[in-house]
Amino acid sequence: MQTKNIAIVGSGLAGSLLAIYLRKRNHQVTVFDRRPDIRKIQFSGRSINLAMSVRGWKALDTIGIGEEIRKLAIPMDKRAIHVNGQPEYFQKYGKDGEAIYSISRGVLNRKMITLAEEAGALFKFEEKVWDVNLPEAKIYTGESEKGAWEEYQYDIIFGCDGAFSRTRHKMQRRSRFDYSQDFLDAGYKELGIPANSDGTHKLDKNSLHIWPRGKFMLIALPNLDGSFTCTLFMPYEGEDSFEMLSSDVKIVEFWNKYFPDTKDLMPTLLEDFKRNPTSALVTMKCYPWTYWDKVALVGDSAHAIVPFYGQGINAGFEDITVLDNIIKNYEGDNWQDIFEAYQEARKPNADAIAELSYRNFIEMSSKTADPKFILRKKIEKRFSEKYPEKWLPLYSRVTFTHKPYAEALEIGDQQAAIMDEVMNLDRIEDIWDSDGVEQKILDRLESYEAQSTSILSNKSF
Amino acid sequence: MQTKNIAIVGSGLAGSLLAIYLRKRNHQVTVFDRRPDIRKIQFSGRSINLAMSVRGWKALDTIGIGEEIRKLAIPMDKRAIHVNGQPEYFQKYGKDGEAIYSISRGVLNRKMITLAEEAGALFKFEEKVWDVNLPEAKIYTGESEKGAWEEYQYDIIFGCDGAFSRTRHKMQRRSRFDYSQDFLDAGYKELGIPANSDGTHKLDKNSLHIWPRGKFMLIALPNLDGSFTCTLFMPYEGEDSFEMLSSDVKIVEFWNKYFPDTKDLMPTLLEDFKRNPTSALVTMKCYPWTYWDKVALVGDSAHAIVPFYGQGINAGFEDITVLDNIIKNYEGDNWQDIFEAYQEARKPNADAIAELSYRNFIEMSSKTADPKFILRKKIEKRFSEKYPEKWLPLYSRVTFTHKPYAEALEIGDQQAAIMDEVMNLDRIEDIWDSDGVEQKILDRLESYEAQSTSILSNKSF
Repeated sequence: MQTKNIAIVGSGLAGSLLAIYLRKRNHQVTVFDRRPDIRKIQFSGRSINLAMSVRGWKALDTIGIGEEIRKLAIPMDKRAIHVNGQPEYFQKYGKDGEAIYSISRGVLNRKMITLAEEAGALFKFEEKVWDVNLPEAKIYTGESEKGAWEEYQYDIIFGCDGAFSRTRHKMQRRSRFDYSQDFLDAGYKELGIPANSDGTHKLDKNSLHIWPRGKFMLIALPNLDGSFTCTLFMPYEGEDSFEMLSSDVKIVEFWNKYFPDTKDLMPTLLEDFKRNPTSALVTMKCYPWTYWDKVALVGDSAHAIVPFYGQGINAGFEDITVLDNIIKNYEGDNWQDIFEAYQEARKPNADAIAELSYRNFIEMSSKTADPKFILRKKIEKRFSEKYPEKWLPLYSRVTFTHKPYAEALEIGDQQAAIMDEVMNLDRIEDIWDSDGVEQKILDRLESYEAQSTSILSNKSF
Repeated sequence: MQTKNIAIVGSGLAGSLLAIYLRKRNHQVTVFDRRPDIRKIQFSGRSINLAMSVRGWKALDTIGIGEEIRKLAIPMDKRAIHVNGQPEYFQKYGKDGEAIYSISRGVLNRKMITLAEEAGALFKFEEKVWDVNLPEAKIYTGESEKGAWEEYQYDIIFGCDGAFSRTRHKMQRRSRFDYSQDFLDAGYKELGIPANSDGTHKLDKNSLHIWPRGKFMLIALPNLDGSFTCTLFMPYEGEDSFEMLSSDVKIVEFWNKYFPDTKDLMPTLLEDFKRNPTSALVTMKCYPWTYWDKVALVGDSAHAIVPFYGQGINAGFEDITVLDNIIKNYEGDNWQDIFEAYQEARKPNADAIAELSYRNFIEMSSKTADPKFILRKKIEKRFSEKYPEKWLPLYSRVTFTHKPYAEALEIGDQQAAIMDEVMNLDRIEDIWDSDGVEQKILDRLESYEAQSTSILSNKSF
């Protein structure tokens, strides 16, 4: 394959990983970012820790940087649920040995940029891309939108510039470009739990901690330095909303009421709450993702999702594994074919993980505290352990396999319909581990298999 | 109410009607348009004739210009269906005296601008708005996006700048602005049937003519000068698509095969086909429609819909009637309250007519030629004539009443479910006018009424 001169817009996680991949295939790579080098500045205070799982790790391991990144990560093999007036309890995410990994987005981004530089990518920070000429693969940068611009000519441009991508923005003004952005009524705020003075964690460090409160929730993910990065998800308006927490007194009263067990853990709560911005949560979908053989979107710029499945970074990194596989398997040098295969492979899966992520807010914020839900999980777990080839729980399929997200969504809906029936059985609390319940599930699975038009395959992108 | 200095962006139908309304309330009105004065140029060759119905007429009659506009309009009280190898047949739209009105968009626009000027609005043509400062209600215009700009300060700005609105575009870059644009796989092309040499029409002039061909269709709407404006709706790609009609021979062959009865009617078919662009069909939704007390979107800029229900102009004009009613009923001068009431009243109805319009492509292009569909309409008509207070057909509710579109969508779905059951009755072709069928419909209606949570009211916006 011919060496191309490639620009990547955006030095975030997708941009820097793609830079490494393209360098391994010997292309020239320049990465533009309108912001300063993240290695030289303080973090923004609007971050949610990442939960890296197998799709993300595969992308890193494939180019041999997984081990290095694992040093930045803390495994979380369970949820730790904090319900007021009850002892903390735990929900395992998967089988023994399966875990998701907490990583600070900023810490990871710094490392990835350094690795990309070492691989030979050139980074241009604080260079603002204002316009992209799609058919000619030209980039225009400058101090301001109205000032003088510099023109750069490339063979290919990748837009890795996130949910509010300038590159996509240019594609969006063209005819026949489908696009949607949908904001949740809830926003989020970053908060923190510092380390103990001896550097240890104040809570179990191998758990993703959740304080589910129905319409809002607090979560905490561990960092290497003994601290936790916390995120409060809450409606903007209405009862118990960001709007209501308009004074120190109101914040403290709210906290005492809903999160009394965290009071001692969060000594800088008030300062954090007032200093850090309230950020929005958006689902963004679009299509097509590519323009001729010239431009392609990768990661959040193509499919921004809400964070409740912990799959944002995993989906973005999987884009890159899939794209690289397609590049590898194409004999010739036809980037238009490569781009078309890429977007056709990824679009249905991006839509599916968007839907699953949206739904998971309900699961995390309400259901994790619901005894019915806990029983349901127990029945599923029992069945799945006995018949692992017949029942892979949805969460596990998404998080611990490389099977397509679209397949996970479809099979997950079938499983949910079966479990709805099971939970409606008389006295399910008493008979949940009976042969009758087991047989019921087996029968329903069989009838799904009979119906199945074999649209589901095991192919994994 | 205090006189405001108001800018309207866009001199199309919504912009010029809104200008007249605001002038009647004594506000200063300046209308900006990036294009030249439509009264001084040739039409674009990408127009679809309007089908004005009661919602549109109400907006015109309320400010006393309905009579003048009626002179430009031709009533169409029926569909004329052209099926290959069958005689033309007719489907009445409503009761006797009910009709929709064909008007050339360009002809109407010219007239509306003149009426707005006469009402005292100032028009600034060929002045391109590049940016809008939303919180300060400032507009920036200039020759080019990168050149020098002029700044204008207003009290209020209305964005009437259509489906690809610059005003909305500025709102869209803000957080928590929901937005979607979805393109159909089909596009459209304007074609024409000229008048006879004596100025008469070559087809029945009081019909909307349809050549339904399944995945594509041709329609023709009459003009005052004896001509018809025709529109071919067809997929972009695939069998029988715009992409396939890539040579004179292919166009002629296609035409001979599918529209042989129009051959003599369309002497300039080939020239028209090649000269006129293929245009896209988009559904655009967004929310909010307003910004503080400063900016509001009206018409296509807030809710662009596909043209298959003939309601685009009617929905846009109804925005203005509703807005004006709210302005009238508000005692004070609080435009933020006015704007909030406006968008809350209109948004559900805009979403409903978008959905109905999208669905109607199927009805027009396939079902109008289907004997089952024709029987279905006959049963509905019979029942509706006998029990007019119990059954107002969906098309009539949308087209010949001022009841909210959202109500039409909901009741229409109930009616469709009932008619699905009726059409599934044994030997429905033989018993369609029997007492049994009638009783079946009555029974099902009763059960809907019993279920009804009385969310439906008769209030009409």
